[in-house]
Amino acid sequence: MKHVAVIGVGQTKFGELWERSLRSISLEAGIRAIEDAGIEGREIQALYIGNMSGMFTGQEHLSALAADMSGLNPIPTVRCEVACASAAAAFRQAYLSLLSGQYDIIMAAGAEKMTDLMGSGVLTTLMGAGDQEWEGSFGVTFAGLYALMARRHMHEYGTTQEQMALVSVNNHKNAVNNEYAQFRFPISVDDVLNSPIIASPLHLLDCSPITDGAAAVIMATEDAVKKLKIENPVWILGSGQASGQLALHDRESLTKIDSTIVAAKQAYEQSNLKPDDINYAEVHDCFSINEILAIEDLGFCKKGEGGKFVEDDKINTEIKINSTGGLKAIGHPVGATGIRQIIDIVRNIRDRGGIGLAQNIGGSGATCVVNILGDNYAK
Amino acid sequence: MKHVAVIGVGQTKFGELWERSLRSISLEAGIRAIEDAGIEGREIQALYIGNMSGMFTGQEHLSALAADMSGLNPIPTVRCEVACASAAAAFRQAYLSLLSGQYDIIMAAGAEKMTDLMGSGVLTTLMGAGDQEWEGSFGVTFAGLYALMARRHMHEYGTTQEQMALVSVNNHKNAVNNEYAQFRFPISVDDVLNSPIIASPLHLLDCSPITDGAAAVIMATEDAVKKLKIENPVWILGSGQASGQLALHDRESLTKIDSTIVAAKQAYEQSNLKPDDINYAEVHDCFSINEILAIEDLGFCKKGEGGKFVEDDKINTEIKINSTGGLKAIGHPVGATGIRQIIDIVRNIRDRGGIGLAQNIGGSGATCVVNILGDNYAK
Repeated sequence: MKHVAVIGVGQTKFGELWERSLRSISLEAGIRAIEDAGIEGREIQALYIGNMSGMFTGQEHLSALAADMSGLNPIPTVRCEVACASAAAAFRQAYLSLLSGQYDIIMAAGAEKMTDLMGSGVLTTLMGAGDQEWEGSFGVTFAGLYALMARRHMHEYGTTQEQMALVSVNNHKNAVNNEYAQFRFPISVDDVLNSPIIASPLHLLDCSPITDGAAAVIMATEDAVKKLKIENPVWILGSGQASGQLALHDRESLTKIDSTIVAAKQAYEQSNLKPDDINYAEVHDCFSINEILAIEDLGFCKKGEGGKFVEDDKINTEIKINSTGGLKAIGHPVGATGIRQIIDIVRNIRDRGGIGLAQNIGGSGATCVVNILGDNYAK
Repeated sequence: MKHVAVIGVGQTKFGELWERSLRSISLEAGIRAIEDAGIEGREIQALYIGNMSGMFTGQEHLSALAADMSGLNPIPTVRCEVACASAAAAFRQAYLSLLSGQYDIIMAAGAEKMTDLMGSGVLTTLMGAGDQEWEGSFGVTFAGLYALMARRHMHEYGTTQEQMALVSVNNHKNAVNNEYAQFRFPISVDDVLNSPIIASPLHLLDCSPITDGAAAVIMATEDAVKKLKIENPVWILGSGQASGQLALHDRESLTKIDSTIVAAKQAYEQSNLKPDDINYAEVHDCFSINEILAIEDLGFCKKGEGGKFVEDDKINTEIKINSTGGLKAIGHPVGATGIRQIIDIVRNIRDRGGIGLAQNIGGSGATCVVNILGDNYAK
């Protein structure tokens, strides 16, 4: 099998970017990635872009827009969408397309402008990630769905609100030094527990925010990496993706996300790695409970012990989880997050070597994409 | 390079399906394709689905929904979107993924439910395929954009409204025997020219309709085709995709679609075929002028001679173009059309052998996907 590496990364600041448009942030992320790779735009042969919903800005066909604005025509472009996992899906499609032998260098990106609402409200738009007909139309929001999962996890395993709060506390602490993060200030457990309840047991500070942002990476086959004389390639060691029930009421359990378990198994098997081998993990903490579910479902601890894992600070000592701030503090532009996670893994590996894992979830877990990257595919 | 074949096809009736939901039509198309292939659902390893806009129904994450409803979990799924070329992009992604060596059997599908509007109007939603900021916000519709192209083609090449009308007349005639078509009645040139003007020079009967529908195909590698003992595989001989300027005002010419020219070149080169070798072509007649542009840009005649090509009935005598009714008479569920075109090519080849080409356009031409299929890849 061929080897594929990330050779360039770029992103915008994440936040409420009132003065920026969807095209403007997409363009910036792409240009930064091209500059970081040290290549010319004309060397890029295809573009995949994650973007969750045209309901935010009214703009579909974003992949063609991004190629056009970046002067990348006439390369083929595709927008990939699996809700909040759209960007990781774009990354994986770029990977598969490079493996196909049809391309040597591809840009994978993600972008979402959530503050410019053309149509429905943000919560209505986001419910498009769940079962609009059987969940959304009855009024549930995503905070509500994850609150059900949190409550059940507390019931089955004794997980506490303090443990969930510690997820947010840790992520805010980690974001302080992240120049791209939306929230660069520390918070305390009391801050979380005293913040307004959004959907019990989840407080405001258990929830990731509404965010604008874009992120892009350049990916290349091993032959292209050599030809371009790239000095710091970060290799894809394993990639997995899986689907699960869209609606919560169809699942056998609310305390695990099957798609994560299956996608992680694929990625571990392909890379011949175990959870113990992972140095850095970017996990999908759209709500604090989901970081705990991820820690368990990715195999970093046993099912039910995720809360304790956080409480014992193993998210810093045994493995670095969301070491740049996670969705909670960096922000969560839904269609861009998956590539932002890859970028943070790449930056960690460039700085300190080792192996990183990114887990990106769509909806309440109907999609999960897991990618494992490392500084050396031969290890 | 590996060879890949279409081994099963299925679709719903196209039309105003008021009694059906997006999930219902997606499910029907998928099951029919599985039945037609004679395989079990559990043999499918991935699902790609084209769908243009969540603004129609509020439902994003359709690929996960479709997998869930069809019992295909936990296979990976991706929704592919490049406006009205979304389904052909899904087909091409399935093709590339099969070439990658990671899968043997994949379902590619497309679905759109345009009559159930949750959010904005149909025309506003469809403008998401163009440049929402610089075209849509000034009030232009897609009929308006194609009217500009038609008017310029008339000016430069003497193309007539009668020639454009003949496109619709021919497509309606061809749809009479198509059980899946929205409009199964013949029309005359006078009918077209006497129908209301939508955007001069385009009359109502120059325009494809608003349609609900879904279509799906099963694709397999050569190894899987042999293992499954498929008797009537239809092989992908060539595939191309390209992008062009999103907004009309950025283009050097309104009388050609660059993305078609580039995508066709790729598909012809890969298949080692010329326009003369094509027996059947499904082209993107969202408006009658676009069939004329396609005939020229795909190389079936010289630039500017498309109107005459139609008038001389070469669309029936030299090559069969839109022989089942085209977008005009079959209907145009935007995210499904690309797969419907592939299905009609497959049906033609299964019945009579030969070589077929499908051309699917996104927006006013910012994306084009061209696929060439045949009964034998060794010819």
